[in-house]
Amino acid sequence: MKLKGKDLLGIEGLDREEIELLLSTAESFKEVSEREIKKVPTLRGKTIINLFYEPSTRTRTSFEIAAKRMSADAVNISVSTSSASKGETLRDTAMNLGAMRPDCIVVRHSSSGTPEMLSRYLSCPVVNAGDGAHEHPSQALLDMLTVRERKGAIEGLKVSIIGDIVHSRVARSNIYGFTKMGAEVTVAGPPTMLPVGIERLGCRATSSMEEAVRGADVIMMLRIQLERQSESFFPSAREYSRLYGLDETKLKNAKEGVIILHPGPINRGVEISPEVADGPYSVILDQVTNGVAVRMAIFYLLVGGAREEHHV
Amino acid sequence: MKLKGKDLLGIEGLDREEIELLLSTAESFKEVSEREIKKVPTLRGKTIINLFYEPSTRTRTSFEIAAKRMSADAVNISVSTSSASKGETLRDTAMNLGAMRPDCIVVRHSSSGTPEMLSRYLSCPVVNAGDGAHEHPSQALLDMLTVRERKGAIEGLKVSIIGDIVHSRVARSNIYGFTKMGAEVTVAGPPTMLPVGIERLGCRATSSMEEAVRGADVIMMLRIQLERQSESFFPSAREYSRLYGLDETKLKNAKEGVIILHPGPINRGVEISPEVADGPYSVILDQVTNGVAVRMAIFYLLVGGAREEHHV
Amino acid sequence: MKLKGKDLLGIEGLDREEIELLLSTAESFKEVSEREIKKVPTLRGKTIINLFYEPSTRTRTSFEIAAKRMSADAVNISVSTSSASKGETLRDTAMNLGAMRPDCIVVRHSSSGTPEMLSRYLSCPVVNAGDGAHEHPSQALLDMLTVRERKGAIEGLKVSIIGDIVHSRVARSNIYGFTKMGAEVTVAGPPTMLPVGIERLGCRATSSMEEAVRGADVIMMLRIQLERQSESFFPSAREYSRLYGLDETKLKNAKEGVIILHPGPINRGVEISPEVADGPYSVILDQVTNGVAVRMAIFYLLVGGAREEHHV
Repeated sequence: MKLKGKDLLGIEGLDREEIELLLSTAESFKEVSEREIKKVPTLRGKTIINLFYEPSTRTRTSFEIAAKRMSADAVNISVSTSSASKGETLRDTAMNLGAMRPDCIVVRHSSSGTPEMLSRYLSCPVVNAGDGAHEHPSQALLDMLTVRERKGAIEGLKVSIIGDIVHSRVARSNIYGFTKMGAEVTVAGPPTMLPVGIERLGCRATSSMEEAVRGADVIMMLRIQLERQSESFFPSAREYSRLYGLDETKLKNAKEGVIILHPGPINRGVEISPEVADGPYSVILDQVTNGVAVRMAIFYLLVGGAREEHHV
Repeated sequence: MKLKGKDLLGIEGLDREEIELLLSTAESFKEVSEREIKKVPTLRGKTIINLFYEPSTRTRTSFEIAAKRMSADAVNISVSTSSASKGETLRDTAMNLGAMRPDCIVVRHSSSGTPEMLSRYLSCPVVNAGDGAHEHPSQALLDMLTVRERKGAIEGLKVSIIGDIVHSRVARSNIYGFTKMGAEVTVAGPPTMLPVGIERLGCRATSSMEEAVRGADVIMMLRIQLERQSESFFPSAREYSRLYGLDETKLKNAKEGVIILHPGPINRGVEISPEVADGPYSVILDQVTNGVAVRMAIFYLLVGGAREEHHV
Repeated sequence: MKLKGKDLLGIEGLDREEIELLLSTAESFKEVSEREIKKVPTLRGKTIINLFYEPSTRTRTSFEIAAKRMSADAVNISVSTSSASKGETLRDTAMNLGAMRPDCIVVRHSSSGTPEMLSRYLSCPVVNAGDGAHEHPSQALLDMLTVRERKGAIEGLKVSIIGDIVHSRVARSNIYGFTKMGAEVTVAGPPTMLPVGIERLGCRATSSMEEAVRGADVIMMLRIQLERQSESFFPSAREYSRLYGLDETKLKNAKEGVIILHPGPINRGVEISPEVADGPYSVILDQVTNGVAVRMAIFYLLVGGAREEHHV
């Protein structure tokens, strides 16, 4: 079985079977990272380019480790958007990279739609590692893998995503993913951070934190970009924290066995209190571990999957 | 057969047989990048350092991919010239890197002669990846490979190089290369961009675009460094484009079957019109593909060539 | 035999047997870098992260080459301290990296104690590649290896460390190392650069250059951070050089067969004259070569040593 498209541009374009394929493939790769010798030969002789127009140590490192554990050659390219390729068009960048015959390009860019545009000019698979406020599909996949692992199944769960929904590609990818998998998704945040019409994606929206937490099986807290938006969208970090920060008091209304996710890096004491971040219900570090496995699965299915019978 | 010197510092120092050896070796490596498994074990256990004092995503990536497809270990070092090694002399940098026992150092630097100076202090091969306005030999080799591929032979061709000749290491390396291979080279550009006495390199010089294009088998357009020189050397990008930019009208005077090269990244609408850049005579993407093969050949001949009978 | 701790945080925490184990292991790895094929399979499938909060081309390159010659996968992360992980705490950074299951993290940071703090949150080994003015253990090990190689043994040697002792992690690690190995250590520098109470580490301190040089078997000159401290700690580079710079005249009082070390990069004409830096007693380049071997030994003993019987 394989994915239908040549790329992974977003969760919106996947159907439930494809998501399940990605999750179960990732599950089978998890043990590679727990071995003494963390390496499978699956992608030997493949070139994977990590093309990052936004700095992201964490995501780039996860993709790079995934590529190397599959025995691929990983090549990192960081472009500061200011000097982006000396004014070269994105189409020219795509076609030039393609001419070097990579087997996959992982791209992060501050503009929505960049991975899709690249993919049009490239015969190799393109993986979206985050584009503007659009999608971040590998993040949603690792979130779903983490939830499925802890809860057994995603179907029927109440999932609440809380924070700056309007700017969050993580939120969008997760709304698509969890609703496709049969969960009930609620998004919550200050009214200024809730996009108008978000319900059309199949979720409920509320600006009541209490409502979002009550009865939730899964709570996903989003990072507040203190450096960027604090002034325009809410009065102060303290104000935000008081109303929408998750602490143990607010958490009491959640369902027993609730689990807490966060895409990281966390702002301790702003959107999440230290007690919650480090508490027994927190699965934040599982997310990071699952991130490597999910990215191995993405590479396997897009780069190596169609051509091989088995991978280990 | 092998190269005479230990380094590749420029095309000036090569004779025709060496250029032919490099081109035919590159040809034999081209198919590696078209394989399912893009990897040969030739340089396993060799350390190749990419030492870049000027940022260059494109050239560094090409060298890095070439090294990895040969199974070498590639180590990237980028030095911002401003903080260059905390004031260490170039000689000390060379000797320190040499003490780590690399098998090859690829160097790009804004000062002409830097690779030559490094090579004096290093027993390992040094490859010039562009030094000031001096030479960029791997670029000229990939250009020659591309022309030979399309035209069958280089001997007797009319090759015109158009643009900012005075600042262009690409132009210099190509003048050396194409004249050594028996082509007739014409360089063209605004009078302020034509170096005095350039004819001594064996080429003709003209400031007439029409003259440069008429009867040409090969036209190589150079990148205009808009960010740097526009004010001093010509009145405006629009003015430059009108006089020296290649478009379909100007191209009509070229020979039938003319091919268009450009070292990239291109400024669409400045030195080259989109129609020409994307037209059927454009071989710009072939150049990029051939770049990887040429760099594999350079590594093979300098690092692995003398010691092995066959490479695949 | 193996090291007692899981990490290499400093020389202070090692006993003499452990230092000797590290040195003799490094000696056995030296020949790998002199081979035609510079590679052993010892750490295949291991992930080594180089986490550098301070830029350091030289040290990072040495660790990266060491990792690759052991067949490990090396992943470089450079963090500018200013934007350090978007305000994430160091503990969170540690736990997140740990969740990706690296086999070793090499860390450099401008704050003393950072590697120790990281190690508390990580089950994998942590190697200190320099923390503030605290320690730089791999540097001291390569210094000791170089001295032992040249002098046969360290026991009983007179070792003088000269320069900015107060800010130097290299000095601290070497004071610990050489005194543990039975050498007599003297530190020297302008009074403003001699830490109060440094004698408690087991060394003598003097602000007399003549006293430091007289009878020395080993002289280690430290780099003066011209860019940072010149104004506050001594009147001028010229003044410093006249009083504490090592030249051939001052060197005459040293013991016959004296050897000169410097951690690099050197300021020619400031703390060391060109004649001395390039003279026959200089072992500066040996230090660099030994650096790769020492780092291979560190990786072997921490990552691969406990689990394997032989390494080549």
